[in-house]
Amino acid sequence: MSLGKASMAQYTAESYTDNDPLPAWNNGKIKQAIISYIQQITDSTSTHFIPVIDRIATFDNDGTLWAEQPLVQELFILYQVKKMVEKKPALKNQQPFKAIIENDTAYFKNGGQNAILELVAATHTGMTEDEFEAAVKDFFSMAIYPGRNVPVKQITYQPQIELLNYLRANGFKTFICSGGTVEFVRSISEELYGIPKYQVIGTTFKYKFNDSTVTIMREPASKLSNDKEGKPVGIQMHIGQRPVFACGNERSGGDIAMLKYSQSSKYPTFQLLINHDDAAREYAYQEKDNASLKAAAKYNWYVVSMKMDWKTVFVKEP
Amino acid sequence: MSLGKASMAQYTAESYTDNDPLPAWNNGKIKQAIISYIQQITDSTSTHFIPVIDRIATFDNDGTLWAEQPLVQELFILYQVKKMVEKKPALKNQQPFKAIIENDTAYFKNGGQNAILELVAATHTGMTEDEFEAAVKDFFSMAIYPGRNVPVKQITYQPQIELLNYLRANGFKTFICSGGTVEFVRSISEELYGIPKYQVIGTTFKYKFNDSTVTIMREPASKLSNDKEGKPVGIQMHIGQRPVFACGNERSGGDIAMLKYSQSSKYPTFQLLINHDDAAREYAYQEKDNASLKAAAKYNWYVVSMKMDWKTVFVKEP
Repeated sequence: MSLGKASMAQYTAESYTDNDPLPAWNNGKIKQAIISYIQQITDSTSTHFIPVIDRIATFDNDGTLWAEQPLVQELFILYQVKKMVEKKPALKNQQPFKAIIENDTAYFKNGGQNAILELVAATHTGMTEDEFEAAVKDFFSMAIYPGRNVPVKQITYQPQIELLNYLRANGFKTFICSGGTVEFVRSISEELYGIPKYQVIGTTFKYKFNDSTVTIMREPASKLSNDKEGKPVGIQMHIGQRPVFACGNERSGGDIAMLKYSQSSKYPTFQLLINHDDAAREYAYQEKDNASLKAAAKYNWYVVSMKMDWKTVFVKEP
Repeated sequence: MSLGKASMAQYTAESYTDNDPLPAWNNGKIKQAIISYIQQITDSTSTHFIPVIDRIATFDNDGTLWAEQPLVQELFILYQVKKMVEKKPALKNQQPFKAIIENDTAYFKNGGQNAILELVAATHTGMTEDEFEAAVKDFFSMAIYPGRNVPVKQITYQPQIELLNYLRANGFKTFICSGGTVEFVRSISEELYGIPKYQVIGTTFKYKFNDSTVTIMREPASKLSNDKEGKPVGIQMHIGQRPVFACGNERSGGDIAMLKYSQSSKYPTFQLLINHDDAAREYAYQEKDNASLKAAAKYNWYVVSMKMDWKTVFVKEP
């Protein structure tokens, strides 16, 4: 199954000229499967019916709802470093700021995961939630996505926005389940995806409530890592039940556990994996070990070929 | 302010015979203040208007939405011990089961917080989420509340159910923010309060995803303690913004930080503290240090006298 589904011959099978819920999706097997699934699980006379309270959908963010070459959160880190050094020039002689300013990639290569975490902590913590939120808001108001030369807010995928709307129109609660840090994603989830802050699950730092200032301080220690096996755990902590619809993408194997977890629901389920195979309109990249596509083949998940399944890729400019 | 508000003279001020949103509340200052607040913050021409997306309400559970003498979760612990010992009789010679079976209160008195945590871990962890959910469901299907001799599901407060409905009818998302363990509360939140699982915040254990069985294992270690200063932290992790409406109760000071945090919102806010002063219809008890009532006086929170503000206390039998 999987990629074999997306042969071009299938794209003339059916057309949805009237009331098409997914106009940015080409008419192929995957679009038909999504629509057929939704029709069945919302039909109260069907044995596949799912009560509204259990219509839970979870979506990864980077590479699933918007582009990830590079990760937007990496752009924010560079932005924060620049801003912090402007404010306090002495920082440019301190690591990890020094390595960023001097474009010293060896520093991060040699330092590995620890150097990256040090950089994330330096730019994301040691401030209150309110201060962090203001910094992220500033970033999004001006950030440009490299290579595409558009505001970062314009790198979301039009077919996925339609899919989120379609699910919600059919009684679903849509959640983001991201490896990114949760407040970063929350800052744009409502505007870009129509998903409120409280339906975003992500990686979190440690927090400390300051009783005298009545603020929450962001501390430089990780509390929950919401990636790979951490995603089902994040879902349990936040939602408390298995999603019946889950969508991720291939790149790092980060969504395999979430898709498996969804598939173990007692209800009929739907798993979707985005394959980045569109060098012309987006990017083409693959996992080293191909673990996500292998899992999709093994467990019968639907694999979206961006090239063939998506009529348009990015949202239109506002 | 605070308790002075609730003199009997105020309870004839106004009547809501038609379309009363809070019929189980006596017509007094607190009921009027709630209704006036809701009218202002939903009026788009008012300077007090709050956009729907920011209408977040958080409620404590024990002593705020249902009775807490004793805590329902304590009843569940006794139920679990009995069931576990029936299944494996050798447990009755092991602590902490032995102390419960033999009613050895000294064991817990001497062991302090550690002995309690050992008991909670023994009855709440070492199983999958699915197994725990089944155990809680069994418990709630048969448990009787001591002293009142009614099913546990009938100890919720009718005025609070009305308040939750009233808030939701005015665009609020209602969350439970409980010191109890989160899955325990989630198992009845929809049925008793109309609050879905994903809008319940609580104390959590550590979880581990088992990839081969595709289940989540509950491990005997605390991950998040959602009480006192832990409540604003739990709110940040789960909701990502300050609630504008918050309600707790006096007993342990467990809700003070949540009410303060709510009050620090940029929007007009409302804080409500339930005072258990009704020995005849419910229970009358006070904190040793009176910290919650003192905080209510200091910060101008509304204090609900169960005796005077609530026309009826418990929900009617179904």
